[in-house]
Amino acid sequence: MRTVDLIERKRDGEELGPEEIVSLIQGYLDGQVPDYQMSAFLMAVYFQGMADREVSALTECMLRSGQVIDLSSVPGVKVDKHSTGGVGDKTSLIAAPLAASAGVVVPMISGRALGHTGGTLDKLESIPGFRTDLSIEQAAEQLRTCGLCYLGQSPELAPADGRLYSLRDVTGTVPSVPLIASSIMSKKLAAGLDGLVLDVKVGSGAFMKKQVEARRLAQLMVAIGRRADKRVQALITDMNQPLGYAVGNALEVMEASQTLLNGGPDDLTRLSLELAARMIYSGRVARTLEEAREMAQTRLIDGSGYRKLKEVIQAQGGNPQVLDRFDLLPNANGAREVNSPRSGFVSAIDARDIGRAAALIGAGRATREDTVDPAVGIILEVKAGERVEAGSVLCRLYYTSENNLEEAAHVVEDAFRISSHAAEERELILEVVG
Amino acid sequence: MRTVDLIERKRDGEELGPEEIVSLIQGYLDGQVPDYQMSAFLMAVYFQGMADREVSALTECMLRSGQVIDLSSVPGVKVDKHSTGGVGDKTSLIAAPLAASAGVVVPMISGRALGHTGGTLDKLESIPGFRTDLSIEQAAEQLRTCGLCYLGQSPELAPADGRLYSLRDVTGTVPSVPLIASSIMSKKLAAGLDGLVLDVKVGSGAFMKKQVEARRLAQLMVAIGRRADKRVQALITDMNQPLGYAVGNALEVMEASQTLLNGGPDDLTRLSLELAARMIYSGRVARTLEEAREMAQTRLIDGSGYRKLKEVIQAQGGNPQVLDRFDLLPNANGAREVNSPRSGFVSAIDARDIGRAAALIGAGRATREDTVDPAVGIILEVKAGERVEAGSVLCRLYYTSENNLEEAAHVVEDAFRISSHAAEERELILEVVG
Repeated sequence: MRTVDLIERKRDGEELGPEEIVSLIQGYLDGQVPDYQMSAFLMAVYFQGMADREVSALTECMLRSGQVIDLSSVPGVKVDKHSTGGVGDKTSLIAAPLAASAGVVVPMISGRALGHTGGTLDKLESIPGFRTDLSIEQAAEQLRTCGLCYLGQSPELAPADGRLYSLRDVTGTVPSVPLIASSIMSKKLAAGLDGLVLDVKVGSGAFMKKQVEARRLAQLMVAIGRRADKRVQALITDMNQPLGYAVGNALEVMEASQTLLNGGPDDLTRLSLELAARMIYSGRVARTLEEAREMAQTRLIDGSGYRKLKEVIQAQGGNPQVLDRFDLLPNANGAREVNSPRSGFVSAIDARDIGRAAALIGAGRATREDTVDPAVGIILEVKAGERVEAGSVLCRLYYTSENNLEEAAHVVEDAFRISSHAAEERELILEVVG
Repeated sequence: MRTVDLIERKRDGEELGPEEIVSLIQGYLDGQVPDYQMSAFLMAVYFQGMADREVSALTECMLRSGQVIDLSSVPGVKVDKHSTGGVGDKTSLIAAPLAASAGVVVPMISGRALGHTGGTLDKLESIPGFRTDLSIEQAAEQLRTCGLCYLGQSPELAPADGRLYSLRDVTGTVPSVPLIASSIMSKKLAAGLDGLVLDVKVGSGAFMKKQVEARRLAQLMVAIGRRADKRVQALITDMNQPLGYAVGNALEVMEASQTLLNGGPDDLTRLSLELAARMIYSGRVARTLEEAREMAQTRLIDGSGYRKLKEVIQAQGGNPQVLDRFDLLPNANGAREVNSPRSGFVSAIDARDIGRAAALIGAGRATREDTVDPAVGIILEVKAGERVEAGSVLCRLYYTSENNLEEAAHVVEDAFRISSHAAEERELILEVVG
């Protein structure tokens, strides 16, 4: 079968056989299928989609392109949590310690900020000394002793995905549901997990703008996981405004700390608790979801989640005192207020714009090669639904350099929609799949 | 503007500005835009199409990528004819001499067989000694003395199209109406023509399977030509069965010769006359189309088209006697009959299958690098609408080697549909555009 025939059949909406998907991807990795044929194929997939069997074959093929971590030497059920990317989403710093303190083993494989979205690794690395480049052996040892570790995506895990992603990134083929599903799941299945809780974001700040797309992505990932005999559940959650108030790396560590002390924003606390409960339930520590929810709640209130995060920071070379003494974290040296142009109700806060503005002043990356300023970011003073007066503070930009500051402030201004009537409150957790 | 942004906007169905199209194509030619981005863009165009302004910008850009032939030193109105590719289509060997003998100057730029379709250059090269690699100066001189020359597509004409076509060929992006239109028209506009008659084929043996697509292609090409101040007309003609009876290079030269002596198949004669008339009218030799039709008819009956083709064969190094003595042409040494499995009426003869079968025994090319056997081919004994008895001969395969012969015979068998009722006769010339 010639590659061009496979491209044409996908272009014409046909379903390819699993062995045809494998020969295409394997050929690409071997250098038999050139980039220009793969990018045409990916664009055809963008338009025509993929059947479940095709997505499974693609995932399986990428999974097998590299090493598969064996965590069988670590006792307990291993459960990870993965978010499709949001703004102000620091739930990994909250839900994971809660679940781990309840007895789940959590090998948390995390990513970096890109575009308008943040990354857990960057947030953790704002803690002086914190290391995320653990070897598999070091990670396994830490899981045995403290039940939780944060580590970066090793280039040895599903390397095919890395190559495909680089190509998708420059050919307009990133936002394809089957390609996103197989990219995420190939890496997760390579990580030696027993269970996985997915947080599929939907809304202005997410890759998925529509709930129907988010649902399809969630269903696909759950199906892939199930076929690989893993316990996979997905929440579909709102990303039409940032989660919590803080956006920016050290700022989000501070907010996570407050939340683990039960003093955090309501939306962030609720979502973190639900994610932790799902991890606890998937980890078979609780028999029912209701019981798991009670365990998560208890671990929050009694501070065991907070202590677990301190323990992990210590184990990974960071200074655990930062959770109490925020002056030990990198701090910005300037703050610029953004004020409301009029009185009314905040009807929406475009999360994408807030993420873009934060990235503009250094909290994020435009390209993979950019470096991140850990100190800078944005703190919202109000959230959607709240009443504001003309001239009152909507948010503050914390900066270390005035580069792009005014542009960022304008982007933030545009992000806030102020209307004369209070809008209906949005649900945070929209759906559960699996 | 980054290339990936242009790809994404086209993917999302936006119309790009002419200067954006130019920067993309120019960047591709300069090596700034890599193949893998161009192929993703082309696949997006396949799905989203292009607006007329985009197609014109693309055509203009490819046209300007190479030299533009200047035929102003040759007196007279220069008119070419172009077919989008068919099976058994030897009208270039008939209409062009008829038009030239009526006084039109015909610089006939022709192509080669590829896939299931034939090519005029291959047909002519079955004539011993015939050369198609004329220089521009030689072509101009021949046009001055005899009014007609056949020449190959020079790589200096619209070289961007050559590069794009090679990429489309291996990325499943050939059958896109705007890409086909700009490919054809960029080469034609580079050839120094005043007028152009297009024969857009539609049906099983054509690139365009549906009349609505053929019409869009015809309209686009006519519009591009008009914007460049050329007289362009298009016929949309049926390619649901081969044109005439002969398919194969020397076999088609023989049939063209018979047709120029007014002894050819009815469908081939009718279409050749209409194309010739349109060329004569575009060439301003006749004042009305009706007058042009009479001139074409006269040139057929009085043998001046036939003599013109002999004159051109002589001028281009071939032996003109081949038109009288078919034994001077390459001849096959075996013939295999294909018989009707039952009595009934021929309701269709799949032209694509006939073309594929002819290519299988050597009359065509699977890839550009293949060589063509000038002697071999297929002669139909019946055409659609005719009655056949069980066991009667449907066609004969003329071969020089038994390689692929049985496979070709099976393909041909499948190409003939025999039904119990006579089907309604199909129109040959379906529409005129422009």
